[in-house]
Amino acid sequence: LDTTRIDQLRILLHTEYPADLADSMFFLNDIENQTVFDLLDPAEAAEVLNEFDTQTSSRLVAYTSPKRLAAILSELMPDEATNIVETIENEKREQVLVLLPTKTATAIRTLLSYPKESAGGIMTSGFVAVPETTTQAEAIRAFIDSPNAEHQFYLYALNERDALSGVLDLRQLLSASPTTLIREIMVTDVLGIPADMDQEQVANLFSRYNLLMLPVVEPGTNQLLGVITADDVIDVLEQEATEDALRSAGSDAEELERRSPTRIAMLRLPWIMATMFIELLAGVVIHVFDSTLTQVILLASFMPIISAISGNTGLQSATIIVRGLSTGQVRLTNWQTAVARQVKTTLILGAVAGATLGVIGGIWYGKIAFGLIIFVGMFLAVNIAGVVGTIVPLISKSFGFDPALTSGPFETAFQDVVGISIFLGIATAMIRFLL
Amino acid sequence: LDTTRIDQLRILLHTEYPADLADSMFFLNDIENQTVFDLLDPAEAAEVLNEFDTQTSSRLVAYTSPKRLAAILSELMPDEATNIVETIENEKREQVLVLLPTKTATAIRTLLSYPKESAGGIMTSGFVAVPETTTQAEAIRAFIDSPNAEHQFYLYALNERDALSGVLDLRQLLSASPTTLIREIMVTDVLGIPADMDQEQVANLFSRYNLLMLPVVEPGTNQLLGVITADDVIDVLEQEATEDALRSAGSDAEELERRSPTRIAMLRLPWIMATMFIELLAGVVIHVFDSTLTQVILLASFMPIISAISGNTGLQSATIIVRGLSTGQVRLTNWQTAVARQVKTTLILGAVAGATLGVIGGIWYGKIAFGLIIFVGMFLAVNIAGVVGTIVPLISKSFGFDPALTSGPFETAFQDVVGISIFLGIATAMIRFLL
Repeated sequence: LDTTRIDQLRILLHTEYPADLADSMFFLNDIENQTVFDLLDPAEAAEVLNEFDTQTSSRLVAYTSPKRLAAILSELMPDEATNIVETIENEKREQVLVLLPTKTATAIRTLLSYPKESAGGIMTSGFVAVPETTTQAEAIRAFIDSPNAEHQFYLYALNERDALSGVLDLRQLLSASPTTLIREIMVTDVLGIPADMDQEQVANLFSRYNLLMLPVVEPGTNQLLGVITADDVIDVLEQEATEDALRSAGSDAEELERRSPTRIAMLRLPWIMATMFIELLAGVVIHVFDSTLTQVILLASFMPIISAISGNTGLQSATIIVRGLSTGQVRLTNWQTAVARQVKTTLILGAVAGATLGVIGGIWYGKIAFGLIIFVGMFLAVNIAGVVGTIVPLISKSFGFDPALTSGPFETAFQDVVGISIFLGIATAMIRFLL
Repeated sequence: LDTTRIDQLRILLHTEYPADLADSMFFLNDIENQTVFDLLDPAEAAEVLNEFDTQTSSRLVAYTSPKRLAAILSELMPDEATNIVETIENEKREQVLVLLPTKTATAIRTLLSYPKESAGGIMTSGFVAVPETTTQAEAIRAFIDSPNAEHQFYLYALNERDALSGVLDLRQLLSASPTTLIREIMVTDVLGIPADMDQEQVANLFSRYNLLMLPVVEPGTNQLLGVITADDVIDVLEQEATEDALRSAGSDAEELERRSPTRIAMLRLPWIMATMFIELLAGVVIHVFDSTLTQVILLASFMPIISAISGNTGLQSATIIVRGLSTGQVRLTNWQTAVARQVKTTLILGAVAGATLGVIGGIWYGKIAFGLIIFVGMFLAVNIAGVVGTIVPLISKSFGFDPALTSGPFETAFQDVVGISIFLGIATAMIRFLL
């Protein structure tokens, strides 16, 4: 970019939406990005930074002076500022935080102390709260005077111990007379989310009760720490859905961010190599049974079919359970119901698929015994796949792992080993009926 | 349930949250559900109905009189009422609609006319709009006097042609003096979503711009039809994530609802049978090459490994593209970029996985040629899988199909056919180096 056109660029940049600007910057190289970023005024830079993925924003942040960073962070909501601060390396982080107004710095330090995927990690501290003895007129004033309370339309009432005691939306507040005390009109039946609740559970609460906003409280004291708005939950849901989908396929959510193919290959390789070594077991099993295979080579034609169908059934069961756990429709406490439902389903699937393939096999080979072996092999493989596919995510969840992690390629590879062992085992036991 | 305890039950029911009540009713049988449902007053019944899945609510609705249904529907927001009305069969639907207040009935009829998965289908008509010549004081009055505008904190301004011309949030409105005209303080840069926009695109807008609410307008005239709130978007996202996950596994979102295992098996069977018939092609390919296999039976041990790894790579690529299309990070217009990224990635993956397995195979069989065949077979299969896995969802999307539909088991089965053909084809061509 030549310097004479910088002013033109500056004007152009002012007219763009931050999200769109961030998008366009995706196509520039690092130096160009830095040039564009430096031209933005703090408010614009703040919004653009807020739209970037972690990798890009941390690179931009690394080349920005602490003073300018402080100016940029002051323009953001505390939760958004915290996300940026998290990408600054430790030493510089302190330099930036001391340059910020004390109140903002304290808010950011508090937010930094919560795990990134907990209610405390996604909440914002830009809310409006007043003592319950405030009058309606004073409360309305408090709303107008809170510059940091963007998107805030709920008034939270605090009791004498500063604990959350009630809530009112702005419309209810407006309907009261100016001298009414908040205590008299507030809704006391208010649900405060503990700050350590997992973000996925928070999302389920929002979806279940159709909420726009929920307050977050300190678990013991019920002190109001922040609020979570539905737009934060939208981000959480997109992120979790992406994570689940990619993990089930044996990759990682980071892949969707802007990374080089080499980095992506490195992310995926461990999964692929692990799957390959499980599959090698299937290879060993086939090797063990190779005299059976050599005698009845048509068996080899049916191996991939049984593998694929049982792998697919297992994946279906696993997906149902993973999604169900994620939306709350399946719970650990009623795991028997979930397993029973899947087994009843796979009994039917295994019987139909096994019978169809058995008939095809029997006709192709010209012996009923061959068809029978295929039927039994398919039926058992599909049912084992259904049970394993259902139970493994439930067990993962109960041990605190992400159920999506274990439901993908490992599952399928394991299924191959089991399915092929059973199929060739039965064929070997019944070999005299085949010759 | 005996009749003497009905009153106790009624009291108990009053104290439960609708979502929790709907949950408990999940464990009752149909007759018990009907009994409980009949005991609820219209407002409670309305909220419970609103929480149920389509199947259960349509059954409850079927046994409820038009008069009671009208009373129940009057308690709901127009968008929620519309969802219920959709489950009433046609003849009864008219009987119910004529019993409703004209305004509500008109709102529902309008909402019914939009496709279920469009902006018009998910919007609510409970918003607050005033002519732009209204004063601040009158506008605040309009807010207080709109009983149907639950969760509404934005004021929409209409010009003389009744088209959307501006927006103001309640806090901005409160900051102005009572005699100010809305026209003077409103934000004119307002984005109206066309009613025919797909719900997934709507969700992307919310996520991109961190919104709590967006107005929906008639495409040509810019007439304000309704608003979409972030909590509606949360429901859309959960629904779309479930749909995508299940479709990729070859099942259907309906499975998560309350259905019998037989019904679920029927939903899954077409996918499984289709996959099986594609896999039968792989069986035929193996049959064609069976003399090669009989001569070098160890090749059979490597078939499932190559199938699994290429199937997995294809699934990863497909999942990345499907998620990317869903979140807007991948677009049809930059498909070359997406394909190039996946190919660069699979070149590395294919080379590493192929080389590793090739070395293992070479040592196991004791001939370099064997290792070479495995390396080439794996490398080609993985790269073809990557390209097909990337392109097929893009093509599906460009033809207007759901890309998740084609990315699942069919993809894997097709991969098996291609991978095995290449592998055994090369082995046959090079058979003299193996003997």
